[in-house]
Parts: sequence; structure tokens; C-alpha cells
Amino acid sequence: MCPGSFDPVTYGHLDVIERASKLYDELVVAVLVNEHKQGMFDLADRIELITEATAAYGNVIVDSFSGLLVDYCRDTQTNTVLKGLRATSDFDYELQMAQMNRELGGVETVFLPTNPEHSYLSSSLVKEVARFGGDVSRFVPAHVHARLSERVAQRGD
Amino acid sequence: MCPGSFDPVTYGHLDVIERASKLYDELVVAVLVNEHKQGMFDLADRIELITEATAAYGNVIVDSFSGLLVDYCRDTQTNTVLKGLRATSDFDYELQMAQMNRELGGVETVFLPTNPEHSYLSSSLVKEVARFGGDVSRFVPAHVHARLSERVAQRGD
Amino acid sequence: MCPGSFDPVTYGHLDVIERASKLYDELVVAVLVNEHKQGMFDLADRIELITEATAAYGNVIVDSFSGLLVDYCRDTQTNTVLKGLRATSDFDYELQMAQMNRELGGVETVFLPTNPEHSYLSSSLVKEVARFGGDVSRFVPAHVHARLSERVAQRGD
Amino acid sequence: MCPGSFDPVTYGHLDVIERASKLYDELVVAVLVNEHKQGMFDLADRIELITEATAAYGNVIVDSFSGLLVDYCRDTQTNTVLKGLRATSDFDYELQMAQMNRELGGVETVFLPTNPEHSYLSSSLVKEVARFGGDVSRFVPAHVHARLSERVAQRGD
Amino acid sequence: MCPGSFDPVTYGHLDVIERASKLYDELVVAVLVNEHKQGMFDLADRIELITEATAAYGNVIVDSFSGLLVDYCRDTQTNTVLKGLRATSDFDYELQMAQMNRELGGVETVFLPTNPEHSYLSSSLVKEVARFGGDVSRFVPAHVHARLSERVAQRGD
Amino acid sequence: MCPGSFDPVTYGHLDVIERASKLYDELVVAVLVNEHKQGMFDLADRIELITEATAAYGNVIVDSFSGLLVDYCRDTQTNTVLKGLRATSDFDYELQMAQMNRELGGVETVFLPTNPEHSYLSSSLVKEVARFGGDVSRFVPAHVHARLSERVAQRGD
Repeated sequence: MCPGSFDPVTYGHLDVIERASKLYDELVVAVLVNEHKQGMFDLADRIELITEATAAYGNVIVDSFSGLLVDYCRDTQTNTVLKGLRATSDFDYELQMAQMNRELGGVETVFLPTNPEHSYLSSSLVKEVARFGGDVSRFVPAHVHARLSERVAQRGD
Repeated sequence: MCPGSFDPVTYGHLDVIERASKLYDELVVAVLVNEHKQGMFDLADRIELITEATAAYGNVIVDSFSGLLVDYCRDTQTNTVLKGLRATSDFDYELQMAQMNRELGGVETVFLPTNPEHSYLSSSLVKEVARFGGDVSRFVPAHVHARLSERVAQRGD
Repeated sequence: MCPGSFDPVTYGHLDVIERASKLYDELVVAVLVNEHKQGMFDLADRIELITEATAAYGNVIVDSFSGLLVDYCRDTQTNTVLKGLRATSDFDYELQMAQMNRELGGVETVFLPTNPEHSYLSSSLVKEVARFGGDVSRFVPAHVHARLSERVAQRGD
Repeated sequence: MCPGSFDPVTYGHLDVIERASKLYDELVVAVLVNEHKQGMFDLADRIELITEATAAYGNVIVDSFSGLLVDYCRDTQTNTVLKGLRATSDFDYELQMAQMNRELGGVETVFLPTNPEHSYLSSSLVKEVARFGGDVSRFVPAHVHARLSERVAQRGD
Repeated sequence: MCPGSFDPVTYGHLDVIERASKLYDELVVAVLVNEHKQGMFDLADRIELITEATAAYGNVIVDSFSGLLVDYCRDTQTNTVLKGLRATSDFDYELQMAQMNRELGGVETVFLPTNPEHSYLSSSLVKEVARFGGDVSRFVPAHVHARLSERVAQRGD
Repeated sequence: MCPGSFDPVTYGHLDVIERASKLYDELVVAVLVNEHKQGMFDLADRIELITEATAAYGNVIVDSFSGLLVDYCRDTQTNTVLKGLRATSDFDYELQMAQMNRELGGVETVFLPTNPEHSYLSSSLVKEVARFGGDVSRFVPAHVHARLSERVAQRGD
């Protein structure tokens, strides 16, 4: 199971998802619904964008959850969470969450290092660049790029 | 002197406080009053929860302060601040504050490494877990747990 | 070109700017206008404070920009950005931005390590200390100090 | 597949191996033969000590290899390497090796964070403590402890 | 000036050298002669390999030095040293050296972040892979690869 | 108690020792005798150099030990070890040792951050600079400088 906000999905996420999909029989990509944080895309959009982006991998299922990751894992009988790891500063936070999730629900977290050529990508950075009119076509798939441009245009100047 | 937000106190804090109380004749635990940031518990509650949790140590005094740490140190004639240190990412920030406090008021900061089994604990993570109905009884003392459950229930869904 | 918020400029910034001004024929200090984030000083004030602080260096030009750094670099035909680097935790973020800027616009970022005696300084920490009445005269030039005191007095009660 | 020197195996290794053995149908623990570095235990001893320590897990096979990890993976048709991760400083080195192994042989490395209570353990530290007569019985299984004491007694004066 | 051991030069070095050569009128690549550490290639070989690899850049001069970097800088009237920076763990060490060199001789060090796709490369890792018969043709230029294979064949059994 | 190799003592060590001496009634500086590692100065010299350098502080006692730190602490009835902390990369290693020493002997380690202006100093770097004829008079007291120059002259040609 691979959790995240995916607001929106980037090539950084897709690199980790594709590689993880080859390591497991089935991979659930679970979009975290954060009720307190308004994103750029709503849940339905995020799911649609990931579903299209991962369709070719064959064994990836897209789902969503709110609340605690360990509750979602218990409900879906998942015992392994997979996360991409980019840089040292990610590591401390992710390690803290991993220890907490094992303590709370016996859920193990395994980390897959991000491909170095995507190590500087994040959804928030991609959105910031897009908002200022920068070209993000190298960072997200074409259908995500189209939707991102649309959204930025709506919000206006 | 051991400063912090303690919103609320966790076993991570208590581990550091207990160990520090054995290294010094007297240890003041000072709750920082941050006027700009609304916490889960108000100052009186935080002080009450820590006071009960540290009563058994004998030489721990609970106090509070607002404003600059160095002003509080000057007013109370304290020259040493003690902080728990969990992970590398804590370290850079805490080091910056320590250098600033020495420069501003000649106050020295000594760091006591958190017991590794509590290294993933933080008040904010504990509150987040509690809000979603997770079991935090292993992370805080029973009286803190009770008050946390009460508070979460009040806020409701 | 040396970008930043400079809200306000500190001796930490000035150390980097002065040293950088000796490495290049001309150095542009570019104040980033962030429309979403209200600072303590407005753009005109920030520019005035830096201009006065860097007048003695001879080859420093103060400018401002909004939007993407790479667009500003393209418009001003700049291909090198220079940033001060204080601590490990700065490094991960700055590295991510540097990779993104090279990818977006072929802009190279070079890092100049902050003088260790200024390694704990930041504009936000200086402002926080000033707000609580702490003495920041060792952290900023006299004219910045005066303006900072004025501003704090206006706000405070 | 879980590679390492295991000179000798500690509770830190065993925590990772036990948890990993629950995530996979079969786990190969592969002792790296380093011809240039003389260890405390020879290959046969290391294998024997791990085999005894992991017998109870049921699905752990102990093997050894020399040369490149990617060659061993190719020969044994393994595409996933699992490593424990303790601290930030481990992370940079392990990330470098992981990227190299993916580039060289398409081998993916997944990281499992070490249980925090074992985060300070390493074979070399355990050996150093044992050499000076320190009690390492909490860090290694009883049969490893016995062999370690024996070895230290032989060497010592 | 860009110092290093270059034993041998890799695509990681060349990426930094090529990008640096565009930022300065002239770039001196200076091979450090370490009398206490026997490398795989002697000084003449290292210089020859770099000279061939950097010939196309036009403004790169290859030189060598022994002793202190600051003495070499003084003798050649260089006031800026440029270093590639790969990962967080590089950073602490390089920062220490940079501060020391500024203190000793007023020499400034600027850091250029390594292209992420080369972030896992190092001469020592490339040599280790080559010694075990791994394919390093993606990590070094063809003429370096040829010489490396030759050297490994001579040493081998 | 403040342990270390002190081969030789630098202004970085002395800054930590002086500040620590003000925090405690009595401070023991304990030179670690490492039988396997030949230093530049022998134990008697190191003790002499520190004793002279710390004479003015009044409450500093210089001692030495071999073997485990926890055994020395037990024999001298010390329960607190104080270490200077310079940079992030120090932190991981020192944290590991601190956890081990608490586990082995109930010895607590507190960390005092090094003054930033000495953050780049280490005995080994000072010795390296001295060996190549660099001026280290700003890094060590005059009597250490004299002895270091003598030693380098004896060795060198």
C-alpha cells in the first residue's frame, strides 16, 4: 500500500509506484483525504488523475482513506506501507511516522529511494511553478499537465 | 531549566525530565506561553498535567513564561537550559536557538538525547492520533490520556 | 545574482553579499516579492535598507522580482544564482530548488557557506527577538536596527 | 534478500530479519565475504551463528557471497534487496549504494527502519565493548554472546 | 579552481567541471597529490585522463598540487575554489574544509550541486565495481573505462 | 566529565571545557588512551598540554583512562558525561555512543554545542595543516602551537 496526498500525482510518485508495482503482486495507491487542508484538486480529481497515470501497470488499484493510516490498514488487512524517500530531510519525518505506525497498529513501512533524477520533485513545488506560468510538462504526465493548466487559468491572475 | 510547550506532556518529555531531575539539584519545567498559537490545552491545564506527572520526582518545579527565554532566565537567575534531542532534524533548529540564546543572554543550552524508544513521540503527533480515535495510552500518562480523550470528545465530529 | 526575502537584511546576509561581491564583477541582490505572505517591511523598505547596507561594496545593485526566479534570470540575462548556506537542514531544501531551477531554466545555483559566527542568524529569528524586546543590535546594521525598533513600537502595546 | 557482514549478528540485525521474514515468503540472509578485511569471525562461524539465531523464523535461508551484490542477485534471480536503516548518517551511504545497484543490475533496495530501541547497535560497537570486558548480553543472543566471550578470551592477555 | 583526487575522473566530476567552465572565464582543475595514499592511478595518468576528458570545454586547464590548498591558491593567485556537492553527508565535511580554508588563506569555496543523476557516483565506488568485474561504462568516459579495465586486468588473478 | 583524545587540545575543546567548567562545581577532562592508535602526542604530553591550557579555570582536573568509558565512570563515581557537538554528522555518532553508554552503565551524556566560530576545528585537521607548514596559531594556544611545530619539525624533512 502506497499512501499520499497526490495533489497532483507527479513523475516522482509514478516512478516509485511503477517500481513498487513490480515488487508486489498488487499495489494499492491510497489517496489521503485531509479534511483540514484544502488542496488544488479534490479527491475525485486526484483519484482520476492517478488512475489514468497508473492504468498501464496492470496491478495498481487506486483507493482513498481518511483518518489514521493504521485504521485503513486494519480495515483492508494490509500490513505493509511503502513510501518513496527522496532526501535526508524526508527521512527523519518518515522514520518518526513509521515507528508510530508500527507501535499503533503493527504496520510495517518499507522505503523505496526515489530515482535521483526525480529527487527534486514535489507536488507543492510543481504547483508553485505552474501558478507562475512555468513549464511543468517534464514533471507530470500530459493529462495531469492539461488539468493543472486549466486549474491555474481558472484561478486567474 | 527545561522549557517547552507541553501541549500536552508525553512520555518523551517525561523521560527527559526524569533523567534531567537526577542530574541537577532542582529542575524547573517552564511552559512557554505562546500568545499567537492556540493549543489544545490552556496554560493552567498544561501546568496541572505536568505537575501531576512529575510529582514523584521530588525536585521538579513547574512554572511558565512568555516572551524571550533569555529574559526568563535572567529573571530567575538560571544560566542553563536543558533540552531533549530526538533526531537530526531537531538538531539544526535547536543548535540555532542555542547559539542565539548564548549570544543574547549568556544562557547555555545542554542537550540530553531522548531515549530511543520515545524518539518518534511528539505532542502534535499524539494529538493527531487522538483526534482520529487512535489509542495513545502508551504515549502519555493515564491522567493525560483521560484529559485528552475528554477534549477530543468535546470537539466532536 | 543573490535572491532572498531580506525582511529585513541581517549581518548574515551582508556577510554573504560582501564576500560574493568580491567574487564577481557585479552582484545583483534581488528582493523576492511574495504576494501571499505579508512581511514586516514592504518592498520599498526592504530595498532601501539593503541599498544603504551595501552601498560601500561598490558593485552591488539592488533589484526586486516576483514570480519565478528563472523568469527573472531570463529577463535579466543572468545565469548564476548565489545563495548562502548555513546548516544541513538548509541544504536539502536549497538543493531541491537548485535542481528545479536548472531544469526549468538552465540557471545554475552556487552556494557560499555562511560565516560560522552568523550561522544561527535568520530574519525571522531576529524579528521574533525584536518583538519581545530583545537586543538585536549585534545582528543587524544600525539603520536596520532603528527601523526594526520603530516598527515593533508601532505594533506593540 | 538481506545482505551484510554480520560479524557477528546482533539483536539489531535480528529485529530487521524477523520483521522482514514476515513480509516475504522467503528471506535469504546473505553474508558478504570481504577478502580484504579480516573480521572477528570467519565466514563459517558467521553463517552458523545466524543460522541458529534465525532458525525459529521458518522461512529464512542463510547464504554467502563475494563480489558484487548485483552479480549475486542475478545468479540467484533476486530482484529485491532489503536493508535496515538506523540513522540519518546511514541513509546517505545506503542511498548511494541503492542507486548504484539499480543502475548496475536493475536491483531494487527497500529499507526497513530499525526498531528505535536497537538504533544504537552495530557489530563493531558490540565487539569493541566485548573486547574491553563490557557486558554485551543484551545486544546479542546467548549463543553469540558465548562465542564472542570465547573469542575475546583467546585474543586477550 | 576545482581541486580533487580524480582517481580516476568520473562523469560526476565532468558534469561539475563542464558546468563550472561555463560560469568562469578559465577553470583550473587541480589534482591533489597525496603522498601518503597510494591511488589506483599515478599523477601523470590522472592528469592525462582529465586532460583528454575536458579538452572539448576549451577553457579548462589541468594542473596538480601537493600540500595545503591555500598555499596552492596563494601561489597561483586564485581566490575561489569550486566544489561539487552531492549529499548531506558531503556537506558537513566540505563546510568544515571551506571554513578552514577561508580562515587560513582568505580562500572562498563555492559549491555547485551535482546533477542528481550522478549523485551516487564516486571514484572509489567506480573502482570497487570495476575490480569485481562490473560494467562501469556508464560512469566514466570511454578512454577512462579502457584504462580502468587494463589496470584491473593487471592486478587481477 | 569530559572525555576525548585531545591529540592535541584545540581552542574548540577549550571553548567547551571553559563553558562546561562554569556549569559544574568540578569538571574532569579525561584523556582516552587508545592502545591501537598511535597519536602525534603520547599520553603524558596530552595531559601536560591540557593541564596548562585549563589551569586558569580553577575547577578542571585532568585525568586519563583506557577501556570503556562506563567502567571509568563507575570507578570514579561519575554519572554525567559532557561532549561538545559541532555538526550534524557528529550528532548521529555521538547519539549512538550516548545510548550505548546509558544502556551499559546508566551513564548520561549531555551535549554542549560548540561555539560556531570553532565549529570547523578538529585536532586531526589542525595536525594536517601543521604538517604542511600552515599557520595554526589561531586554532591552538601558544604552548600547544610551540610543541606542535617542534613535533612537525622532528618528523619532517
